[in-house]
Amino acid sequence: MNGASLSQGVGATARISRVDVTPVAFADPPLLNAVGVHEPFALRAIVRVHTDDGLVGLGETYADDGHLQRLNAVAAALPGVDAFETSRLLWLVRDVLGRAGSSGGDGVAAMINGASTVDRVFSPFEVACLDLAGKTTGRPVVDLLGGRVRDVVPYSAYLFFKWAEHPGADADEWGEALTPEQLVEQARLMIDRWGFTAIKLKGGVLPPDEEIETIHGLAAEFPGVPLRLDPNAAWTVETGIRVAKALDGFVEYLEDPSPGIEGMARVAAEAPMPLATNMAVVAFDQLPTAIAADAVQVVLSDHHFWGGMRRSQLLAGTCDTFGIGLSMHSNSHLGISLAAMTHLAAATPNLTYACDTHWPWKTEDVVRPGALTFADGAVAVPDGPGLGVELDENALGTLHEQYLASGLHSRDDTAYMRRFRPDFERRLGSW
Amino acid sequence: MNGASLSQGVGATARISRVDVTPVAFADPPLLNAVGVHEPFALRAIVRVHTDDGLVGLGETYADDGHLQRLNAVAAALPGVDAFETSRLLWLVRDVLGRAGSSGGDGVAAMINGASTVDRVFSPFEVACLDLAGKTTGRPVVDLLGGRVRDVVPYSAYLFFKWAEHPGADADEWGEALTPEQLVEQARLMIDRWGFTAIKLKGGVLPPDEEIETIHGLAAEFPGVPLRLDPNAAWTVETGIRVAKALDGFVEYLEDPSPGIEGMARVAAEAPMPLATNMAVVAFDQLPTAIAADAVQVVLSDHHFWGGMRRSQLLAGTCDTFGIGLSMHSNSHLGISLAAMTHLAAATPNLTYACDTHWPWKTEDVVRPGALTFADGAVAVPDGPGLGVELDENALGTLHEQYLASGLHSRDDTAYMRRFRPDFERRLGSW
Repeated sequence: MNGASLSQGVGATARISRVDVTPVAFADPPLLNAVGVHEPFALRAIVRVHTDDGLVGLGETYADDGHLQRLNAVAAALPGVDAFETSRLLWLVRDVLGRAGSSGGDGVAAMINGASTVDRVFSPFEVACLDLAGKTTGRPVVDLLGGRVRDVVPYSAYLFFKWAEHPGADADEWGEALTPEQLVEQARLMIDRWGFTAIKLKGGVLPPDEEIETIHGLAAEFPGVPLRLDPNAAWTVETGIRVAKALDGFVEYLEDPSPGIEGMARVAAEAPMPLATNMAVVAFDQLPTAIAADAVQVVLSDHHFWGGMRRSQLLAGTCDTFGIGLSMHSNSHLGISLAAMTHLAAATPNLTYACDTHWPWKTEDVVRPGALTFADGAVAVPDGPGLGVELDENALGTLHEQYLASGLHSRDDTAYMRRFRPDFERRLGSW
Repeated sequence: MNGASLSQGVGATARISRVDVTPVAFADPPLLNAVGVHEPFALRAIVRVHTDDGLVGLGETYADDGHLQRLNAVAAALPGVDAFETSRLLWLVRDVLGRAGSSGGDGVAAMINGASTVDRVFSPFEVACLDLAGKTTGRPVVDLLGGRVRDVVPYSAYLFFKWAEHPGADADEWGEALTPEQLVEQARLMIDRWGFTAIKLKGGVLPPDEEIETIHGLAAEFPGVPLRLDPNAAWTVETGIRVAKALDGFVEYLEDPSPGIEGMARVAAEAPMPLATNMAVVAFDQLPTAIAADAVQVVLSDHHFWGGMRRSQLLAGTCDTFGIGLSMHSNSHLGISLAAMTHLAAATPNLTYACDTHWPWKTEDVVRPGALTFADGAVAVPDGPGLGVELDENALGTLHEQYLASGLHSRDDTAYMRRFRPDFERRLGSW
């Protein structure tokens, strides 16, 4: 291969010609959390950014109506932009949202209130542009982020208390998990199948003492496996402190025990383990206050609401500077997001915890199988240029039809829960 | 151009085969500062990173003996590394320096004490790798950093009090500048020639009241032109506060009036303008303390000691998060550094001040002319792939011979000054 001719021959344009935003719905089990239960379908929007040269870059994000409206407004403004110029793209998103109005936007990510609307809207376009930049240059996205510091990315088993089935539907293969014993069974099944070497439990569902018991049960069953508990800020500060002390030595971190930076700071002052968050600190403008208060010791990054992959690297570097640990958050997602998460995690030196993923709960996807496989609970960085995943147009069509048929327009775990438990109350700092 | 064949055909390897580190010396005028006077030659090291495919990436850095030794130790370990994998390269630098010992290193950048040795050694290799990544993919380096947010980068006129000539040598074209009036003449000449739209004055040379008078003179002569004064921490806190108040409304920022984070914080508490620094905060581990103390309102980034271009972007993002302004520092440098500074500045949204550069004081270079030109005090981002500058091998040879003949092994403005003014005392927080 000749270097001189290469440097002449490449330099392909990556001028954006057209952008498609396609909402999809995919089947989701009845997973329980502090605000309700997952609906039968989870919503995502698939972003396709096309170039003059016929390349397509892929992105994936939330799909509530307000978010879709903002995505479409930005999509309409993108033709003509160079996919390498993502900083200008961020300005463009700010500009479009400034004109269109950018208030609201809660609910898209469930309990990610306070995240930056601009960063959330920018994210799928940035990912798609990096996919394009990789495809244009023949390099995997990880190489555009400083290269890999690990070849495989460990994910954690993500355990949920759950119903056996959605009311009126057939039981899923996971069965009911409403007791500590059933939850340990779920963990065993998931680890047998996927090989996970770390475990996260979604809490805030059973009374705190039963969740403590569940963690103790998991610790007994899986000695040496790092554990985490995440009640989504369901507890009072007093409960947070009490549970933290009861879990001393049992969890690597305790995630969002209580609401807000002040609440987290009060629990952190007495907790024997690091506190993690993807609720109290979800945007750059919250970092100064959180750092001054020493409110959190681990931030769960998430490129979907921290403004894409490069801004997630900025978050990572900021955490490194201020001595804050770094892990990775997940909402229910498809293969484009898993690919992006894997490239980003592979490029992030201080991402030393196994990442969260809802992947095992998912039975449908929009990407062709094969590029993303779990071995020993970890995913290898895909080999190909860009994100390394390929869209299955038929599957996209099917899941888009499913979206239209579902009648869903936003995620509302609480309303769905109340159809079956009319007296259900969301737990927020109340248990 | 066909997208599918492109994504197959590119993906050039960027495997490092060999690295050359070449110290050079270039003529430098007798510019005065708080610790002495510039010697007749400034030293730099030129780094050439070669790949299996015959491409060459360029970097430029300091060239004192200790630094050269560390550069050579890293250079020997580089063959086989992929130029895209700069994060692993940073680990490699840490590893090599850990084994070789990394203490010391003051003096390489004059008054940049406390900077990270790892970041300083890593920098020229990272820049060379980004040059290679750009050449491999046919894109300018700015596109690997998120793309340009500006097409031209404004620089500031960098004024110095100076002698008419090095003792025993011929006078240079700039003449003597030892009074406020002579300094204003220098500014007029520099702005006429280069078109600068901002002015920086290197202070700490004349008694503080004469430097105040100089700034007042510049403000009268160049109304509306942003001014800065940088005494390199020559003043006591009391003098810093007094000068700051005397310059209220005359400077856009005051740079390093007094030493240390604590000294800067005390001046900042009473100064009517932002305080900038490239002395009190020169490494990531100093940011938390400086931010907690509100010691500085502007950080002067410098990819040579902040760990290269991507880590300078991390600094920029951190400043943005914490509401700190961002400008850019310069030591005496050649064209490779100016190219890197220009690409980085073009990619950095919150770099809203004109950058420093010693460029006009330089009469020799190692890059072929043409790629970097000043118009209205600004430099356009070079067009070509990578950094967009080409090494002149003959000029490199000549300046390397000059290095060997100079007998210089480190920068020591104080020792040089004392050859002519034996009673000279460095000013540090003492005036």
